Amino acid sequence: MADRYDGFRAVAREMKVDAVALVPGANFERLYHHDFHSHERPLLVVVPAEGPVAALVPNLELTSFAALGFEGDVFDWRDQTGYADAFAALARHLPIRSLAVEGQGMRVFVHHALAKAYPGLRIVDAEKQISGLRLHKTPDEIAALEHAIAISEAALERVVAGVRVGQTEAEVERSLRLALYEEGAETESFGAIVAAAENSARPHAHARTDYHIKAGDALLIDFGGRWGGMNADITRTFFVGHATDLGQAVYETVRAANQAGFDATHPGATAHDIDDAVTRVLEASAFADRIRHKTGHGLGRQVHEAPYIMRGNAEVLEPGMIFTNEPGLYDAAPGGFGVRIEDDLLVTETGVRSLTKFPKTLRVIG
Amino acid sequence: MADRYDGFRAVAREMKVDAVALVPGANFERLYHHDFHSHERPLLVVVPAEGPVAALVPNLELTSFAALGFEGDVFDWRDQTGYADAFAALARHLPIRSLAVEGQGMRVFVHHALAKAYPGLRIVDAEKQISGLRLHKTPDEIAALEHAIAISEAALERVVAGVRVGQTEAEVERSLRLALYEEGAETESFGAIVAAAENSARPHAHARTDYHIKAGDALLIDFGGRWGGMNADITRTFFVGHATDLGQAVYETVRAANQAGFDATHPGATAHDIDDAVTRVLEASAFADRIRHKTGHGLGRQVHEAPYIMRGNAEVLEPGMIFTNEPGLYDAAPGGFGVRIEDDLLVTETGVRSLTKFPKTLRVIG
Repeated sequence: MADRYDGFRAVAREMKVDAVALVPGANFERLYHHDFHSHERPLLVVVPAEGPVAALVPNLELTSFAALGFEGDVFDWRDQTGYADAFAALARHLPIRSLAVEGQGMRVFVHHALAKAYPGLRIVDAEKQISGLRLHKTPDEIAALEHAIAISEAALERVVAGVRVGQTEAEVERSLRLALYEEGAETESFGAIVAAAENSARPHAHARTDYHIKAGDALLIDFGGRWGGMNADITRTFFVGHATDLGQAVYETVRAANQAGFDATHPGATAHDIDDAVTRVLEASAFADRIRHKTGHGLGRQVHEAPYIMRGNAEVLEPGMIFTNEPGLYDAAPGGFGVRIEDDLLVTETGVRSLTKFPKTLRVIG
Repeated sequence: MADRYDGFRAVAREMKVDAVALVPGANFERLYHHDFHSHERPLLVVVPAEGPVAALVPNLELTSFAALGFEGDVFDWRDQTGYADAFAALARHLPIRSLAVEGQGMRVFVHHALAKAYPGLRIVDAEKQISGLRLHKTPDEIAALEHAIAISEAALERVVAGVRVGQTEAEVERSLRLALYEEGAETESFGAIVAAAENSARPHAHARTDYHIKAGDALLIDFGGRWGGMNADITRTFFVGHATDLGQAVYETVRAANQAGFDATHPGATAHDIDDAVTRVLEASAFADRIRHKTGHGLGRQVHEAPYIMRGNAEVLEPGMIFTNEPGLYDAAPGGFGVRIEDDLLVTETGVRSLTKFPKTLRVIG
């Protein structure tokens, strides 16, 4: 009989394990349309290849957990007594010898509690397979991401219109954050990157409070708002006051690489193909030594998820998949700068649609 | 020779292991005054009980990592080739047979990569000992938290002044979030809880978009802003329009319990003592069946950290420790409600100081 756990049961069979475990996070939220704080209190759902599910839940979450319409037995535990007994009770109730887990979601303390309650348990990292169930986005998810992107782009336009020479990166970051929330974001998809001059050459830079933006600086903004459980992730690089010849040349190279990524995307292409098309443009340029990272990553309920757009990844793109196309070139030496242009692409039945609409022509601001 | 790793080296000796591993997160940030995104790319520092440190770092983070002034060898890896070789190189460079890790920080995929690179490695969960190094807050950390709290309380006052019958919880949540950022928060400490009527009886409720606040509702707001790396965590419960007799009685019980927690706090008291003093007030009331959780948790760079304020925890409170004092009473039945009052308390040389200043007298709003 089909139920909402079919995909997870199939993963258990594919991995030749007795069950799949889910912890709070993106997979959990997609399944139940609800997530839980994931702090020091273990919360776990076990989905066997066949038969009833079971869960281990902190007592103080029981009311919220009941709202999920959970179908199996629940073993709860209280702060005062700890969770070891609940794990032991779960193990008696649902004896298994092997378990697939979300390797990027489950933390070591839960792994250890499982290993103690189930002596000899074989724990397999099935992050790829479990999160792979989220590869094909539903129409609701696509619509939610489009809304998240619309919010984000409206916020970006407001912010770049206000950038002035002399502001700090931190001031721009703060106005971006406020604009995102004013436009309706539920939260930031991640801590935004607002980086000028050399700092823009750090792919994951932090905004500085002590650097004042100068005329001629590149200003890289990598950010996004979350809405309806879906995370926008957009990068645009601007030039403040004016763009140097070198700045223009690097920018147009990155823009051409971004275009090559878009052009290469269609159902049947592989993740390798996209990264290869993009990276070949960068490699063929005068700036090949400025390459620092692959082309992109899947995007959805997590900011980074499959498919990872990189050479060597033979994963075939299929309609409903969404990923970032974000080539960049970076020179972190004094006086250097970075340029990155990032769109969120949806693979369609016939090709590709960019969910990101913000213009990519070189723009001088401030 | 003393260095900034002394505390971690002492943990390694205490746990009788060869080294301590650190992943991005609160401990990492306190050590280096910088944090890294913790997505699908492993980043790891290994601190042996004696001798030079070493690190495993994604290639694209090398520039940012260099800014830490890291003292040891760094093994980097690229997305295209994966991280297995870097783990193997680390293992050849720094052979160890046992390793203490942050059980609530390290995820299973890093655990597995370590186990593969170091066959037979004994991995010990030393979350308590490693994070225990953050138990005593520095003057800078205390000042930062006071600022985070001031921001949060200013935001709360603005929001409650604007609450009206007919608004949804989600609308109030949104105005709270905007106010936090306008007041200067760097981010929310956690997803705020804005919950009215029955929803306020769920300790970790989510704001509803479809429930309109009614006269007579309890309105529970549990939230905080983060500033300077420190997280405020404050709860106040209001009544909209009017408070019923039952509402007043429950409120005053919780307030008395909160006061008992404050009164019981001084250096030398145990975490048990505080929870016991608080819980005895709740148990002695007519509402003992509404108890759902312990009194509180440590607070700092993480929203939940040691010391956990619960019966059975013999941990002794010392000057510089900060924890939440947040008794609550909850009735999730139809027509029920919850009340929680949460302060952030600093243990001082002579007693206790409440960093939270927002008034606790029963307040009718709207």
